[in-house]
Amino acid sequence: MSNTKVLPLLDPGPSEAAAPCCPPLTERPFTAEEAETAARMFKALGDPVRLRLFSAVASHEGGEACVCDISDVGVSQPTVSHHLKKLKEAGLLTSERRGTWVYYRVEPSVLAAMGKLLTIAPAAV
Amino acid sequence: MSNTKVLPLLDPGPSEAAAPCCPPLTERPFTAEEAETAARMFKALGDPVRLRLFSAVASHEGGEACVCDISDVGVSQPTVSHHLKKLKEAGLLTSERRGTWVYYRVEPSVLAAMGKLLTIAPAAV
Repeated sequence: MSNTKVLPLLDPGPSEAAAPCCPPLTERPFTAEEAETAARMFKALGDPVRLRLFSAVASHEGGEACVCDISDVGVSQPTVSHHLKKLKEAGLLTSERRGTWVYYRVEPSVLAAMGKLLTIAPAAV
Repeated sequence: MSNTKVLPLLDPGPSEAAAPCCPPLTERPFTAEEAETAARMFKALGDPVRLRLFSAVASHEGGEACVCDISDVGVSQPTVSHHLKKLKEAGLLTSERRGTWVYYRVEPSVLAAMGKLLTIAPAAV
């Protein structure tokens, strides 16, 4: 018997699973799969603290910020970290450690895809 | 003493509280109040079944549908009703009874406002 195993090449983590997916919500009824993917992104923004953190990163100079820049939302540092992790898992933020700090950046393609979901298809008007 | 009472003229229900509120997420950090309002809308779409129901209404002819048109999402009728209620409370759907059926309609201004939240402000690119 060989030791060689066929590795699963397509095993998207939470981040990849939340990649741009779907037509505008007004175009046709979503399939179950589309709804799962898109709901994950909306849910990530469905918490006030997460939304403030996301907005703080998104509006920061250059579209990125370190935790030191965005902790002013009235919750503890562990809570900030928890919410940033959730935003990363939903594919809305990416992060990179540079020296002492971890820098967070908005994933523009995901933001654009979510915006597209909410556009109003001509047929529905 | 007079029987005349000054009625509270501004007592927004959940629907009005979720009305269009905020600048693009990339423009500046959201205030706590803006985040509360916007998160309520995102949260309403952060569930796969709700998202499918919303999409079914939004993409239906004329932008409105009765429950009889949109119940094909694999959950029980009470669950459908529960989710439609949540979407109404978030201000994303309005409803109107006509004869036997209740018809649901997408609130286009709210959809447009959510889309606007997700546009990328020039300064952030």
